[in-house]
Amino acid sequence: MTTKAYGALAADQPLEPLDVQRRAPGAHDVQIDIAYCGVCHSDLHTVRSEWGGTLFPCVPGHEIVGHVSAVGSAVSGFKLGDTVGVGCMVDSCQHCDSCGEGLEQYCENGFTGTYNSATPDAPGHTLGGYAQRIVVNEKFVLRIRHSADQLAAVAPLLCAGITTWSPLRHWNVGPGQKVGIVGIGGLGHMGIKLAHALGAHVVAFTTSESKRQDAHDLGADEVVVSRNKDEMKAHAGSFDFILNTVAASHDLDAFTRLLKRDGTLCLVGVPEHPHPSPSVAALIFGRKALAGSLIGGIAETQEMLDFCAKHGIVSEIEMINAQQIDEAYDRMVRSDVKYRFVIDTASLAR
Amino acid sequence: MTTKAYGALAADQPLEPLDVQRRAPGAHDVQIDIAYCGVCHSDLHTVRSEWGGTLFPCVPGHEIVGHVSAVGSAVSGFKLGDTVGVGCMVDSCQHCDSCGEGLEQYCENGFTGTYNSATPDAPGHTLGGYAQRIVVNEKFVLRIRHSADQLAAVAPLLCAGITTWSPLRHWNVGPGQKVGIVGIGGLGHMGIKLAHALGAHVVAFTTSESKRQDAHDLGADEVVVSRNKDEMKAHAGSFDFILNTVAASHDLDAFTRLLKRDGTLCLVGVPEHPHPSPSVAALIFGRKALAGSLIGGIAETQEMLDFCAKHGIVSEIEMINAQQIDEAYDRMVRSDVKYRFVIDTASLAR
Repeated sequence: MTTKAYGALAADQPLEPLDVQRRAPGAHDVQIDIAYCGVCHSDLHTVRSEWGGTLFPCVPGHEIVGHVSAVGSAVSGFKLGDTVGVGCMVDSCQHCDSCGEGLEQYCENGFTGTYNSATPDAPGHTLGGYAQRIVVNEKFVLRIRHSADQLAAVAPLLCAGITTWSPLRHWNVGPGQKVGIVGIGGLGHMGIKLAHALGAHVVAFTTSESKRQDAHDLGADEVVVSRNKDEMKAHAGSFDFILNTVAASHDLDAFTRLLKRDGTLCLVGVPEHPHPSPSVAALIFGRKALAGSLIGGIAETQEMLDFCAKHGIVSEIEMINAQQIDEAYDRMVRSDVKYRFVIDTASLAR
Repeated sequence: MTTKAYGALAADQPLEPLDVQRRAPGAHDVQIDIAYCGVCHSDLHTVRSEWGGTLFPCVPGHEIVGHVSAVGSAVSGFKLGDTVGVGCMVDSCQHCDSCGEGLEQYCENGFTGTYNSATPDAPGHTLGGYAQRIVVNEKFVLRIRHSADQLAAVAPLLCAGITTWSPLRHWNVGPGQKVGIVGIGGLGHMGIKLAHALGAHVVAFTTSESKRQDAHDLGADEVVVSRNKDEMKAHAGSFDFILNTVAASHDLDAFTRLLKRDGTLCLVGVPEHPHPSPSVAALIFGRKALAGSLIGGIAETQEMLDFCAKHGIVSEIEMINAQQIDEAYDRMVRSDVKYRFVIDTASLAR
């Protein structure tokens, strides 16, 4: 089955319209007509092969929302017309300890990414959501309970949302806690909204004075411009948990120092160049931890989507047509987006 | 009250016999006639002012065991002749959250170290256990239940023992767990003994093939020579917890890679030169943590001493006279000690 998509034939080529194949739905598959697909930094890194190892043709996109247009004979959880989503994963081994615990993102045999992962389907690697249609095993399909008019803004929850939700939940963020969110971009703006909705006292950290009001509007109780040493110092030793969404190389000790005893600084971005080596003394004197977290499992992604539907939480988005994707990438690199681009896949028909 | 001690008058001077003052025991004080004092790397760093800020005269020593020779009027927990110990702390604020939780080592107002900390007593800073006598608030005095012939080998439990015990307990090391101990020195050899006694499967890591049998003798179930890449690789992704006692700068990723999902690599030594910056990806892909831990609180030090008495655990020591201390420091720097020097304070009378 052929579907219209947008992707690149090589790392140094712009994205262009492509016709790609999707498998016919198997017994456990759900066929989804994609309505919107969010644009993640990983899309850009992959399509330009900045991390190496990109398989071409490359169709990015792992923040997918749409409607069920066919189901396999054994699918019981979804029916035609259901509003659904697909995130960063479309399969995993299903038998390792991590899969058994619903943490497919840590699958010990390696999960199958929504794009750029090996698959028996043509062309031998997965093709993502910058497309009109996708076919996914029902175990990796999420139910969306938001209202129809919110659908485009739900898309980024499938990656930016779950990537911030999972660590906030794992480290038990909630009422009575002081929580920091470092960076106010695609991930950080979701981190602020989610930590606020979970009942924590939220402090947003930004390098840009200009984002101060925005951060408050997103739900931050306090905003700290991290270049201001006095502002930083006033928060020393006061945080239960800090979620750091900034991938650019920077001084982690500035944030470790703000943690209480037994606090954790959690990173969700891999820097292109290493951060300066963190101070071991800053960890020892306070039994502090520097940790990492990767997206989230399917069960917790559903939990996050349901929580967001209940609390009216969506991403802040700017809608684009597929034809604008290279321009959007350039703006994303300059952090010139509030806060996530979303492709209207209707534009693929043009 | 004057007591004979051994210390240095300046950073570039050898240690020599000194007469120092101890306060008369106050209502809550315990006066201890010191029998033995362990020799810790921190003693050397401090007396040579390698960390800067050393106050002279400097009398090191914070692995103190001895007998009660006087008690203040309000002391109820100790009586003349009791066998007792003093570790790295002799006071703390007693009113912050950390002190309230029995974690005086993280006192938010700074604990008073057994040596080189400010005190109202002469000469204005604390003087440690390379001495015949010390006077300490009863809250910081530990009860020792080992047999009399074990007393010298109990001394190192007060620093090396508690520094390894506290993280093993905090991260819930016990039966069914696979635990790594990196470095087989003063701290590491205690880590092996304690993790083994706590019921874990213990793997010792050393750079020296020559320590393989010793590590087994100390209680390690397996020994890995960390320079051997194949040996390391065989343990990838298999550890619940790794306690890293090596302070010299080294590649932490080699050990992070050996952790299971949600595992922690805990550091207890501050490197003179920073470790190479740890891989963020290695933390993210597995939700792993790099943490630190500092000695231990008074309550858990007592818990550790009682556990060791019950299980017959002491340190492996080499006894020296105070007059041999500079030579012992030189050997310690070369890791030429199995595994802790202990000063027989009877030698101070000579």
